Parts: sequence; structure tokens; C-alpha cells
Amino acid sequence: MRIGVIECGVCGTDHDIAAGKYGKPPAGSDFLILGHENLGTVREVGPGVDGFAPGDLVVATVRRGCGLCRFCAANRSDCCETGLYTERGIIGAHGYIAEEYVERPEYLLHVPPALRPIAVLMEPLSVVEKAIETGQKVLDRREPTPGFPPQRPPTALVTGTGAIGMLASLVLSVRGYEVTAIDRHGDATLAARVLRRIGATHVDSSSGIDAIGTAHYDLIVEASGAITLDFQLVSRLAPNGVLVLTGIPDASAPPISVAGGALLRGMVLANQAIVGSVNANRTHFELGLNDLLRFEERWPGVTAELISQRRPLNEAPQVLGEHVGGAVKIVLTVSTLTPFSDLSPRR
Amino acid sequence: MRIGVIECGVCGTDHDIAAGKYGKPPAGSDFLILGHENLGTVREVGPGVDGFAPGDLVVATVRRGCGLCRFCAANRSDCCETGLYTERGIIGAHGYIAEEYVERPEYLLHVPPALRPIAVLMEPLSVVEKAIETGQKVLDRREPTPGFPPQRPPTALVTGTGAIGMLASLVLSVRGYEVTAIDRHGDATLAARVLRRIGATHVDSSSGIDAIGTAHYDLIVEASGAITLDFQLVSRLAPNGVLVLTGIPDASAPPISVAGGALLRGMVLANQAIVGSVNANRTHFELGLNDLLRFEERWPGVTAELISQRRPLNEAPQVLGEHVGGAVKIVLTVSTLTPFSDLSPRR
Repeated sequence: MRIGVIECGVCGTDHDIAAGKYGKPPAGSDFLILGHENLGTVREVGPGVDGFAPGDLVVATVRRGCGLCRFCAANRSDCCETGLYTERGIIGAHGYIAEEYVERPEYLLHVPPALRPIAVLMEPLSVVEKAIETGQKVLDRREPTPGFPPQRPPTALVTGTGAIGMLASLVLSVRGYEVTAIDRHGDATLAARVLRRIGATHVDSSSGIDAIGTAHYDLIVEASGAITLDFQLVSRLAPNGVLVLTGIPDASAPPISVAGGALLRGMVLANQAIVGSVNANRTHFELGLNDLLRFEERWPGVTAELISQRRPLNEAPQVLGEHVGGAVKIVLTVSTLTPFSDLSPRR
Repeated sequence: MRIGVIECGVCGTDHDIAAGKYGKPPAGSDFLILGHENLGTVREVGPGVDGFAPGDLVVATVRRGCGLCRFCAANRSDCCETGLYTERGIIGAHGYIAEEYVERPEYLLHVPPALRPIAVLMEPLSVVEKAIETGQKVLDRREPTPGFPPQRPPTALVTGTGAIGMLASLVLSVRGYEVTAIDRHGDATLAARVLRRIGATHVDSSSGIDAIGTAHYDLIVEASGAITLDFQLVSRLAPNGVLVLTGIPDASAPPISVAGGALLRGMVLANQAIVGSVNANRTHFELGLNDLLRFEERWPGVTAELISQRRPLNEAPQVLGEHVGGAVKIVLTVSTLTPFSDLSPRR
């Protein structure tokens, strides 16, 4: 199938690739086309492809399996055991910041037209869906306790209010969690405003983790990649609680001093867990699509606010080189054929 | 029910309590009767108790629920959310190193006579069963991949060859894992001999973790409580691998230097987990009982070798105060009515 690209979101991984810290071109290429957060329209459908027609809105998944391990064989390349996967726009395969790309239908998802203004968030949302699914499964190792419901709603802490942290706050809220999200940017930001609108609590933790008081949380979704904070968060888990790591710290960061005895002892005595989560598979894109619809139903228009800016493609070098304070998600408009004016919600 | 105590195993927690580092007497008492690893015989059954008769061999569970939280209400006090549980012989309730104790039938398990020589291991085995069940559940967060079996048997590393490490090695072996167990005591110990007999690999890691070579493991069961080692083990996890912590480090241990960036980044990019596991509930004692039968079937007599010494009750002060090099489990013989000569296997 041939897909015309409408727009691509830019994330920290793109910045790292642009800075030469990460990423790898396809075999035989001396450059890498960036872009993994994507939204496009079908332009041409090859023979033997069912269910897609020109004009359909689609989002493509990112990782392509190694073809060797049992997880990739089962369409779960997010758990690839060999590490020989590729990722479009990141590792070993060109991305979506291009006029067009070609892809097999099994890597494409239909997007309903109503989600056009926010569907470019589906890829980061898929990462969030996998992280929260992982955290929930690890929480559920305790088994449900039929007939013995919790005496309080489950509580979640989200650290970092970039796109991953904000989308995690939205997902956890629709899942019934009482959500607190922390960052170091004060109460006047877009993120803080959106959090208030969805009924979550925003805390400025510039002064440190104690800004959240003495609370402990069933689930913590770490989306800041701040190494010292990561270790501090373990002490904020409730009994049986789970810390899910989504932020990717720098491997070359200098060693830090950790009160390992207290940390590990606490984890044992309270049955606590830390779990890393990376990437996502098709099922997480599907979960994300359902959740985008739920977000719109519950908080109309709020998700679109997370897209702080749409910038034209020729500004890509600036967008990839700069850090825009207070922005949640910056999107590059790729297609001149489908300008953003056509992307207004169809309500 | 009134139970006559036959024997009680002694573990690191007992040593810590005897040294004044842990434990709490029952409310209103200025002393604590020790002993949580237990085997006894029913002496008297109260009215309204079904299914037990005098002379039955029984093992008692240890933790008693808080009566407040949903887990304790569902007989899963091992996951108690309030921390207000008691533990017989450890926290807030007298233990089993006594001529007799009184207990409710729901906290007692029948033991078949054939398991008499090894049933005192059921309590530490219950802790192992919970830890491995926890690890397996966290591994299974990836979902099974029906039709796509692993290309190799699952692999496990066990660190520490005390009773917990050795029982973990036995359980993981009957579960189909290829097991490697490490300690710092050379190849001539009882533990090393037993490991060879069950087809596991024993490695002396006195020189450090690199003694195991470059292998990575699906499941690591940490039973040494060695803080620096705990952090090193994360780098020995296979993709999607799980490190289960059962050893309880000293909370007051001095901080250590950790290459947190590499550690956490690795956990995220390879979907890895660290999970603490403490205590056990009745279902884990039942799993343990089944596994003791399987051990005897597969490796007749091997489990009994883990009981390095049986010592008379009047030697309790020495046993609780000393560390016996090379011993796996030391058991205190409590009952003069049921001497060990009556406890030989009935084959």
C-alpha cells in the first residue's frame, strides 16, 4: 500500500537521533528518514489487499519483527527476544517524514475521520497503553479479590508531563485511577491546565518529590527519565505497588549514590515491583484508538490541546534542534495536499 | 485445635530476632516465642472442627491477616495492604518453638505421612512458591504465544544456596527451567552436591558475578540479600526477564554507587522487571506440598539432605547464635514425644 503522509509528531527520540545520540539508517543507506509518530491517507492499494481504500485515514505501527523469535512470530515484536527488530524512523528502516511511504496492510490501522485532529498521537499513546497494561498486569499478579473490592479508588502518580506523561494521565483517569502528575514547570502551563480539566492533581515538584506530601501510589508511571527520581519513586509505592519506567535515561550518566538496602528491603517486604516498558504492538494501537474516542466523549477537545504547535515541514531542522518550553507535543505538517484546515473535527 | 510441635526450622529471620534486630512480642507480652517453620501433630480437636483428627501431621501457616484490608479478607494476608498483620514467631504473635500451640483449622494443612522427614521445609518452601509464582506471573505479562514455543527451555539463575535458594532450585527444575545457582562457598559443599544431583549448574561466584560467564536469564531468584549483587543482576536478565527479590537486605546498609542510567535504560529497552516477594498464603503451602511429593518422585531422598542437622531444643540458644558454615537448614527437635527415630520415611 502507498500512503500519503499528513503529519508526524516529534518526540525525544527524534531529538536524540537528530543529535546523533541514537538511531541507525537502513542497511545500505547513509541517511535515515526520521519520523515514527504518524498519520496519513491511503493513496493506492495493491492487488490482494482487502479492507483499505484510497482516502482512508491510517496510522502505521513502528517496529518490524526480527522474523526469528516467538514474540515477533506472534506479532508481538515489542517483546522481541533477539533485538534484531527494526523501527521505522529510528533503527534500520526509514520513517514517515516523507511525502509518501509504502507499507503492508498488517502494519496499518484505520482511523475514524472524527479522530483526524488527534490521531497523530496514536503512536505515543500506544507506548502509554503498553506501559499501563504492563503495570496493570504486574499489579494483577496479586489476583483479583472477588467480593472484596478496594476500600478506595486505585491511585496513580505520573512523573513528567510531556506527551507520554499527559497521555498516561488521560488513560489512567478513564481507567478509574485517581491521578497525580508532577513536573517542574509551575502551575501555569498547558499541562497543568489540562490536568486540572480532567480532574487530576498537578504538583510542581521543583523542590523535590516531597512536594507530593506523604502519599503512596498503587501505580507510578515514570515518564521523565530522571535517574535519581526513578529510585526515589520506589519509596512512594503503596504495598504491592508497581513502578513502570517509560523514560529512557542516558546510559552514560555518572553513577549515583543509592540507599540500596532500604530500597530493596522495602520492595521485598511490601511486594513491590519496578518494570520497564518499551514500544508497543498493534493491540496497543487499538487500545489507544478506543481511548482517544473515550477521551473525546469525556473531555471534548482536551486531547487536541496536547498538540501545542503544528509547524510546516521546512521548519523541521529548527523543531528537531530546539526545546520549546511548555509545549507538550509538536507536530510537523508534511502533506501540502491535506492542509490542516481540512483536519478540523467533524462534529 | 491443640497441636503438639515435632520440630521447627531455624532461618535468618530467627537469627535476626534473637539478635534483637527484628520481631515484636504479642501485645501485652514482654517476650516472643520464636519459631515459624513448623511441623506438628494434632493432639486435640475442638467441637465443630471437621477434617482433622488426633495424630494427624500438620503444618501451620505463619501470617494472620489484619482483618481490615481486601487481601486479608480474601485469605491473602501475604499481600496485606495495611501492614497490621501479625506473624507467628515473628511479629505480634507467639511462634511454634513450644511443646504445644493452639490454632484454628483454616491455618493448618494436612501433611501426608510420607513427607514427615521433610515437611518442616514447607514454610520456607511456601515463600519460594510465592516468589516463583510472582516471577512467573510477571514473565507472563508478555502473554503466552500459542503455537510459537520458546526456541530453548527457560533459564533461571538462583543467587544464594541457603534453604530458600536450594528450594528455589528444586522448584524451578521441576518447572522445566535450566537452573544455575551461585554462592561463594566452593564446589565441595552439600549445596553444590545437591545441585549437581538435580541436574542444575553450580557456580562459585566468589570472584564476582562474571563467574557465570556471559549468560542472561529469563528468571533470577535472588536469595542472598546482597545489595550490590542485586543491582548487578539486572544486567544478567534476558529480554523481558524478571528478577525476583526474596533476600531481605539490611535497611541501614550504607548507600552504594549505582550506574543508574545504564541500569534503568536497560530495563526499559528490554522490558525487564524487578519484583519483591515476601511471605506466602495458604495456596503457596499447598503448592509446596505438591512439589515436595514431586521432588521425592524425581530425586528420592534429595530434599531430606537439605536438612543439614537436627538439634535438640536445649541447644536452641547456640543454634540461634551461631552460623554453621555449609549448612542449608538446621532444625530444632521440639517434641520428646515424637523423637526423630519415628520420622524416618515410610517407603
